[in-house]
Amino acid sequence: MKHKKLYIPGPTEVRKEIIEEMDEYMFGHRMDRMTDLYTTIVEDTKDFLDTDKHVIVLTASGTEYMESSISNLVDDKVLCSTCGSFSERQAKVAERLGKDVDKLEYEWGKAVKPEDVREALQKDDYDAFTCVMNETSTGIRNPIEEIGEVLKDFPDTFFIVDAISALGGDYVDIDGSGIDVIFTSVQKAFAMPPGLAVCVVDDDAYQHEKEKDSASWYGGFQRSIDYYKRKGQTHSTPAVSLMLAYRKQMKHMLDESHQERDKRHKKMAEYTRDWAYQHFDMFPEEGYMSQTVSTIENTRGMNVAEVIEEVNEKYDLVFANGYGSKLSEKTFRIGHMGDHEVKDVKELTDAIEDVAEL
Amino acid sequence: MKHKKLYIPGPTEVRKEIIEEMDEYMFGHRMDRMTDLYTTIVEDTKDFLDTDKHVIVLTASGTEYMESSISNLVDDKVLCSTCGSFSERQAKVAERLGKDVDKLEYEWGKAVKPEDVREALQKDDYDAFTCVMNETSTGIRNPIEEIGEVLKDFPDTFFIVDAISALGGDYVDIDGSGIDVIFTSVQKAFAMPPGLAVCVVDDDAYQHEKEKDSASWYGGFQRSIDYYKRKGQTHSTPAVSLMLAYRKQMKHMLDESHQERDKRHKKMAEYTRDWAYQHFDMFPEEGYMSQTVSTIENTRGMNVAEVIEEVNEKYDLVFANGYGSKLSEKTFRIGHMGDHEVKDVKELTDAIEDVAEL
Repeated sequence: MKHKKLYIPGPTEVRKEIIEEMDEYMFGHRMDRMTDLYTTIVEDTKDFLDTDKHVIVLTASGTEYMESSISNLVDDKVLCSTCGSFSERQAKVAERLGKDVDKLEYEWGKAVKPEDVREALQKDDYDAFTCVMNETSTGIRNPIEEIGEVLKDFPDTFFIVDAISALGGDYVDIDGSGIDVIFTSVQKAFAMPPGLAVCVVDDDAYQHEKEKDSASWYGGFQRSIDYYKRKGQTHSTPAVSLMLAYRKQMKHMLDESHQERDKRHKKMAEYTRDWAYQHFDMFPEEGYMSQTVSTIENTRGMNVAEVIEEVNEKYDLVFANGYGSKLSEKTFRIGHMGDHEVKDVKELTDAIEDVAEL
Repeated sequence: MKHKKLYIPGPTEVRKEIIEEMDEYMFGHRMDRMTDLYTTIVEDTKDFLDTDKHVIVLTASGTEYMESSISNLVDDKVLCSTCGSFSERQAKVAERLGKDVDKLEYEWGKAVKPEDVREALQKDDYDAFTCVMNETSTGIRNPIEEIGEVLKDFPDTFFIVDAISALGGDYVDIDGSGIDVIFTSVQKAFAMPPGLAVCVVDDDAYQHEKEKDSASWYGGFQRSIDYYKRKGQTHSTPAVSLMLAYRKQMKHMLDESHQERDKRHKKMAEYTRDWAYQHFDMFPEEGYMSQTVSTIENTRGMNVAEVIEEVNEKYDLVFANGYGSKLSEKTFRIGHMGDHEVKDVKELTDAIEDVAEL
């Protein structure tokens, strides 16, 4: 198959040498090789994310942690902030689990505001509050750090952060921001093949789950953390091949450092926004724009589907339309995350300029 | 890393050409390529398993379906048959989910008997009955087909079958055996790299979940089935690389056919048992021995751990000790599943004979 370079908001481009790392015969998940592999990726991830909390790497999409975070921590009531498709999904997941869900709703394109969170939390007793760090559907970056400051005043409410398309490309001080649980998928800013989810969990969350009457087994924090402590392995057979790729890419990420990746992503975001302002407009609220995915407002009435198709055909570069029927033609999205640099993004914007005759 | 040929009860040996199939650049999970890939593996799996029921391929270990089957189908009470570590795990998972669990318990090494199941089901109202097809810890093959006949007399009780180390190497007539849900992991008799679970679900189970107040989201049957019907894709980003390997291996399995794979596994099991009876004894109850993993009773007081180590060192072949502290030295296990043939098993038994001086 012809190589198509990805600028969609996930899966993102994975470097050839990372893919080739999967070219290994299988080995047992209870062998020493596995202990070595799993402890290496867990400890390296802790280093990279600069956290002393528990780190779990689970074979699943990040969505699994949208579910198990709620199963493990919410007894009755949860407050979910929504500002786009993925944060709305978090609320739907909690509802499907039979939980009592209140929503703090924002129009698509707007960000969650700390003062609103405080007000909402004061009105009722919530076991947890959920917030998406980077709303992939709208290109909003919520002020997780400031919201975390608010949560510190509500010690009985767990702060659950979905960082699926942000973590690894947008620095967040996990241990300093009042976060109890934060998770991501590796096929986003980590630039790895999809199939693994990463979850960071603090002691309070671990302890609460342990004392809870019911919780997830597969996505249970307790089981993963205990198994790791006891044996340095995963509780169930993991995707060994993907973990081999993970190990190599995480070493690369450590070499670059989280702070430097953050800077590189900032540069790509700034470049993309400048370009967008020149030809179109940005969709998200000013001051809350994502560092990993830019949602651009299609102010020129360009045929988004056609341009995507032609850029793909002519240049072998792939970017995305707007999310869902609401935004599909009204916006388009450029994912600038993972291992891309400004020159890669420029390659795409040049191609769009050519095809759309900007 | 040196190639070690696997005869453990999973992950099993994966052929080089299947591993190499993962050597592809990433592509989007909402692209036509993905629709083509996912519909191909789902439809081929239906063909292979000879079922008209729904088939789901999910990024997870099979354990995820131990959990979500219960979440999706059990309102109150479930009866779990236990006869070893993995069937006991199924009961623990249900308990962890807060369900009311009754157990039909058997000693390790004994099989679940249809008449006992009937008696137990008559005593109470159960939303579901769980049974492991192949108890990997003891090498027992439960009479799923006969148990299914019993379940047909209890139409309000779902029959959930964990076929994790059997399906693909031990033929079962899914549609004719009263089974509502049956699941496996691909790293066992499918001989694929781990990270995907396969679940077959009938309409009754689908419908019950839909009407249920709470259910799993990630492991929800409904969501996976509906998304497949609407778009031919998965509800969340799947492990694309593993699905590429899956496609190639499933074509190979179709070429061989389920019935022929069944015969080949039967031959390997018979060979292994004959060898075991010559030098040791078989651990499981007569008449209920697994076709994919033989648990051999260490009647000679052989140092199992040492022999495993030396066979690994000298021959680069890997087999397994007994499961858990109870059986670790009392038994040892030979996995004869996936793409192995009798000659491969003989290679291993010859090595054991040499090292253990049999």
